[in-house]
Formats: sequence, structure tokens, C-alpha cells
Amino acid sequence: MTVDYMRFLSSRSNWIEKSLLADIMKKASDLRKSGKKLIFLSAGDPDPNLIPREELARIAMEVLSNEPRSVLYTPVNGIPELREELSKFLRRYDGIDVPPDNIIITVGGTGAIDLLGRVLIDPGDIIITENPSYINTLLAFRQLGARIIGAPMDDKGLIPEKVEEIINRAEEEGKKVKLIYTIPTGQNPMGVTMSESRRRELLDIACDYNLLIMEDMAYNYLIYEDINVRTLKSLDREGRVISVGTLSKVLGTGFRVGWIIAEDVILQKVLMEKQPIDFCAPAISQFIALEYLRNGLFERYHIKVALPAYRRKRDALIRALEENLPDLRFTRPVAGMFSMLSLPEDVDGVKFAERLMTSQGVVVVPGAPFYTDNTGLNTIRLNFSRPSVEEIENGIKMLSEYLRKLSL
Amino acid sequence: MTVDYMRFLSSRSNWIEKSLLADIMKKASDLRKSGKKLIFLSAGDPDPNLIPREELARIAMEVLSNEPRSVLYTPVNGIPELREELSKFLRRYDGIDVPPDNIIITVGGTGAIDLLGRVLIDPGDIIITENPSYINTLLAFRQLGARIIGAPMDDKGLIPEKVEEIINRAEEEGKKVKLIYTIPTGQNPMGVTMSESRRRELLDIACDYNLLIMEDMAYNYLIYEDINVRTLKSLDREGRVISVGTLSKVLGTGFRVGWIIAEDVILQKVLMEKQPIDFCAPAISQFIALEYLRNGLFERYHIKVALPAYRRKRDALIRALEENLPDLRFTRPVAGMFSMLSLPEDVDGVKFAERLMTSQGVVVVPGAPFYTDNTGLNTIRLNFSRPSVEEIENGIKMLSEYLRKLSL
Repeated sequence: MTVDYMRFLSSRSNWIEKSLLADIMKKASDLRKSGKKLIFLSAGDPDPNLIPREELARIAMEVLSNEPRSVLYTPVNGIPELREELSKFLRRYDGIDVPPDNIIITVGGTGAIDLLGRVLIDPGDIIITENPSYINTLLAFRQLGARIIGAPMDDKGLIPEKVEEIINRAEEEGKKVKLIYTIPTGQNPMGVTMSESRRRELLDIACDYNLLIMEDMAYNYLIYEDINVRTLKSLDREGRVISVGTLSKVLGTGFRVGWIIAEDVILQKVLMEKQPIDFCAPAISQFIALEYLRNGLFERYHIKVALPAYRRKRDALIRALEENLPDLRFTRPVAGMFSMLSLPEDVDGVKFAERLMTSQGVVVVPGAPFYTDNTGLNTIRLNFSRPSVEEIENGIKMLSEYLRKLSL
Repeated sequence: MTVDYMRFLSSRSNWIEKSLLADIMKKASDLRKSGKKLIFLSAGDPDPNLIPREELARIAMEVLSNEPRSVLYTPVNGIPELREELSKFLRRYDGIDVPPDNIIITVGGTGAIDLLGRVLIDPGDIIITENPSYINTLLAFRQLGARIIGAPMDDKGLIPEKVEEIINRAEEEGKKVKLIYTIPTGQNPMGVTMSESRRRELLDIACDYNLLIMEDMAYNYLIYEDINVRTLKSLDREGRVISVGTLSKVLGTGFRVGWIIAEDVILQKVLMEKQPIDFCAPAISQFIALEYLRNGLFERYHIKVALPAYRRKRDALIRALEENLPDLRFTRPVAGMFSMLSLPEDVDGVKFAERLMTSQGVVVVPGAPFYTDNTGLNTIRLNFSRPSVEEIENGIKMLSEYLRKLSL
């Protein structure tokens, strides 16, 4: 090899950071391949046994046999039938009234966030997020040169006064905040859900200071209590909220079917930039998603079968944490897939997670990379959607035993 | 709506251009939906009837029923089994020796090109391409702020002297050329294939001037003659060639399975940036592609059944052009999916294509947007892979009749 590649790298590639989440997933995949038995309390996957895979298998068979479009490029914004079906779905389950042409089908919620980032974010722009927030969004925005400032949450979600403080402090520095990125329901990684009144306050702030809000609805269909919260989008009267959503947690993270809800020039810019970036979301997945929705599988399976099962897993995690680690703090999610556990202050969460995986075969994700300000070093994000109740119980037991062993 | 979205747009979003290809696909989709019968001589799709859909349907059914990983996130670089299978495939069919860990599974070749662009291209960087070249790559690079300079082709492909002229002229202006993007086999849109000696000359130029070459292998598996050309990658002794490939034209454009072959820090940067951009290529597609390759469907079906059928379609197109438009110039492809037709000099290809679609229901793509320098205004790119032999014959007949009508 005689080429010095360093001189060919773009300067913007300096903003690309290592992703601990991707590393952990890869390491776990290698361990699994080498035959090691693992308990996954880690990635944001649904439970493959709480996805109606037999029905999806039949759907896929029909679709590939009978629908030639399922193997070809689709229009850049997705097949019209799916956008129509999603329009109905969003009205029914998210209280959002959006015409099909304002929906763009993306490569998961991940693709949606990156596409919007490319249209909205210039290097140096300030984006406010929750602190902590979803690591892949933080990395996506930072790769575009954004400066991220996180606002703290309490048990009702993002604290509005703290958001205003950040905006005002930025203004004093002569800088403007462009956007607030929030996961109001079942926040990743904290597991907190924003109350209805906090949602209204956040919209007021966006209005007062003329900001946009990017609402990430990834966990909107994993709600375990009668909490009566509306999407920011449904409360939005001014067009300030750009929504990002996905069927990943319901249909399966592997299909890569998400969406953007946008208007006006933002919609147009995304439509124009998209085809050279991904050409289209996978056609096979779009047609499977279409039949999933049309055949009422969301009601018949997700709501009736999967959701109660996820609730039981959530309960099992909380119970296991209360029994095994009663002296530690952890969040009690009413929605989503995660609880955030705080280990003792002096424990390095990143190292703990690494050793827990290699020595005990329990895979968790350290919370530190999700924090926007180098705090949370002792935190661990626990996923309860993927593992079984038994794996949750064993995993937390092994985690607590390992913790005890460390402190000896 | 009270929000003025214009103030939220990033300045880089100014580099986003309208894509005529996307528009045509959308318009055709709308027309199809409204019931209009269309002949597609347009998009770069394979023929859905030359894809073993019944076998893929069975594979999909098995995969979804029996492989839980098929509905979940995969590692960012793709499932290891597919990368291993592709490593064998690339050795056998492209003469490329690459370890599985140097392969990244991407969202089609499109995703591969954009991911590499983000790592390699800074605003203002000069990229040399063929003139004309694939529109989505031109748009992808321009969206990243690249300045594209196209070098002409003859019937042997890219003309090396012209490439050197561009490099030297840039150097006189105090600018450096970073990268040459080329589709050596079955070039899109010209239909030309680069000769073996030209490939060697191009590598010599890359070596002499210290450039990288991005080799797009999209059409490597659609070769109709015994042409004996090797991939640039297989001739590369210095690591100058970064390869982008895809199963799209063989398995189906709708699956979104492509790859990057890279080394060293370029491989690392792509691996690091990728998960926040797309999380992973669709799992269902990766597992289908894996079984497609493992079950020998590339040999049993693509080589034995599809390839001869595509050759017949290529022959039918050339014959139809010779019979109906003997006075016009058109390329005679030995590989790929396209022939480029030059209409009379005074005909606006963009307007012609638009009216041909709306009035005659024949969908073609004007060549002009593929040109890097505002030439080729009278050109039309004709796809022969998607339509049947009968549709090709009728489509070209209708095109020539419409052309005759216009000149009256």
C-alpha cells in the first residue's frame, strides 16, 4: 500500500466520532458468532418473538410472488399506498393530520434524522437536545458540524426553564439556537415521558424564540399506562414541529421503514436531496409494511399481544432492579424500551459494561456516550424489550452480583 | 402557517438540485396509478420477470420464519455471513481479493457513493467524472459542495489524455483533483465499456498524479460479449481504487444491498459515520441476498436465464434503432442497461421526453442532466433491461413516429 489516505479525507470527516453503540453491537455479534451465550439488555431492538413473523413471512411470500414493484426502485418518497396508509395510521394513533404527500418514507427513523439534518444544520449551528439523548442523533448532528447543548430532564421530561436558559445564554454569546430535538415519549436513553403541560410549554418556547422542534416519535407505540399525552405535532398550530417516526419498534428494526412529516420548503429540499443519498427505502419492506397495516396486524398483534408482553417485561425489569439493586437509582418508564440505572458514583459505566459483557455475557450499553456534557459517567442504559422476562431477571441478577464482586 | 422556513435552511442545502430523474419516476408513478398504460425505457431497473421472484419468495418466507435476526438491526457493516459470501463472489466474478472485513454492506450502490462522498469530499474539491455520468452520483457529490469536471469518452471509454488535461489545468489554477469517479463497465448513461488498456492508463494517471479512483461496478454482471476486461480494483497495486458495487441489477433494485470495498482510514471513517446515517442496510434484504448467493441463484438463474434474455433485449433495441432511426447516432453497449441516442441537433431532449411520456405513454430519460457541461441537450438515454422485447420494439417505433411528427 503506497497511498497516504489521510490527505484525501475531507475536513468534515474530522467531525466523525467513534460510536460506542456500534462497537458494542459489533463486539456482541463477534461473541455470539464464536458461540458465547449472551443476554442482551442492550440494543433498541424489539423482541423478534413479539413480531408476527409467520404472518410477515406469508406476506413477504405473496408480495414477492405477485407484486413486481416489490423488487424495483420505488419513487423517492415511497410507494403512494404506504403513505396513504400511514396518513390514516398517524391520525388514528398519533392525532396527527397529515396528507400523504407530506410524508416521506425513509430508511428508518435514522435516515429521516440524517436527511433533515443535512437540510437544516450548518457547521456551528446550535441544537438543543435532552441531556442525555439518543446517541445516534447526537453523532448524526455532530457529523454535520452542529454544536449540541443538552437540557436536563426530570420525571416530567425536558425542563422548560433550562431550555430557555440555554437559548438566552446563546443569544448573549451572539448565537442563535435553530432547533430542539426531543423524544417526548419513552425517551431514549432515560425512559422518561414528557407530560402534556411540558409539551405545551415547549411549543410556547419554540414560538416565543422562533425555533423549530424535531419530534422523534420512535417509541409512541410502546406506551404502558393511560398517560393521555398528545404528540407535539398534533398540538402544533404554526408548523414548528417536524416529525420523525418509524415502524421499527413495531414491525422490526431490520426493515428500515421510517418517515418524515414536513411541509413547504423543508419537504421540498428533502425530496430533492434524497434520491442521490439512498435512492429509496427498501421496496420489499415498504410492501410488507403496507400489508402489515392493511391487514390490521398493528391492532390484532402489536396492541393485543406484543404491548401487554412488553409491559410485563417492563414490570420484570423494575422488579428485578428493586430486588437486586434497591440502593441505586433507576428510572421507571411508562413508555419506550429503556430504563437508566445509576451505578455508584465512583464506578466507570463504560468499563463496567465492557467487563460485564466479556466476563458475564450480559450486554448493556453505558449511558455516558448519550450525555451531552461528560456527566452520567456511572450510568447504564438497560433495554427490556429484546430479552425475555427470564433473561431480564437473570441479567439483572448477574449484573448486581458482578457489581458486588467489584466493590469487594 | 406562520413559520418562515427559509431562515432555518442550512446554507449547504443551496447545493441541493432538483433531480429530473426523480421527477420523471414520480410522474410516471402518478400516471401509472391513474391507469395510463406506459412503456418504460427509462429507469435503471432490472426486469422483475428476470428476477427469480418465486424462489426469493420462498427464501423470504424461510428467512422471516426461521431467522430472528432478519427483523432486527444488523451490525453497521452488515451480517458477517453476507460479507463472507460477497468476498467469494467478488473473487470469482470481479477478480478482486478482499477480506470480508474490508467490505461494508450499504443501502445500495447509492448509499455507498454518498457515504464515501461524505468522508472524501470537501466543498470546492474537484472530482473528475466521465461526461456524461450517472446523474445521482453527480447530484450526490454536488450536494457535498464538489466541483465536477467531466472528461469525454469515445467508444473505448474515458479518454486518458483528456483526464490529464483536466488535472493539469486544475493544477495551473492552483487546485488539486482528489478523485476520479468512473463506471468502467456498461457506463451509465453512455453504454460504453472501458477497454483493458484504457483501464491501465487510468491507473497510471492516478498513480502519477496521486489521485484516488472510485470504481462503480453496478453493471459488472450485465456483460453480453466476451470482452475480457478486468476491474480497476483487480489491477490496482497501490490501494488507489475504492470500489462501490451492488446486487441491485441482479437481485433487484428494491432490496437496497450494495457495498463499499475500502481500506485503512477510509474504511474506518465510513464505519464510524454510518450507523447515525442509516443504522444498517435492511436485514431482510441482507438475509435474502445471502441465500440467493448461497443457493447458487446467481449462476443458475442470473447467468443461465437472465443474462441471455438481457442480451436479446439489447439486440432488440439496437435492431429497433437501426430500423426506425437509421440516420441518428446511438451507442451499441456490450454491457449494462443503456444506449444513448442522439436526436437531431435542434431537438430539446428534455421537452421531447416530457411530451413523449404524457402524449404517447413512452417513458425515456433525457440525457442532458447527465452531462457535466451543458452539452448533450439533444440526447436521450434508453433503458433496455426493464421492458420486454415487444415493448422495446413498440416503444422505439412510437418514439420515432413521434419524432417524425414533430419535424413536420
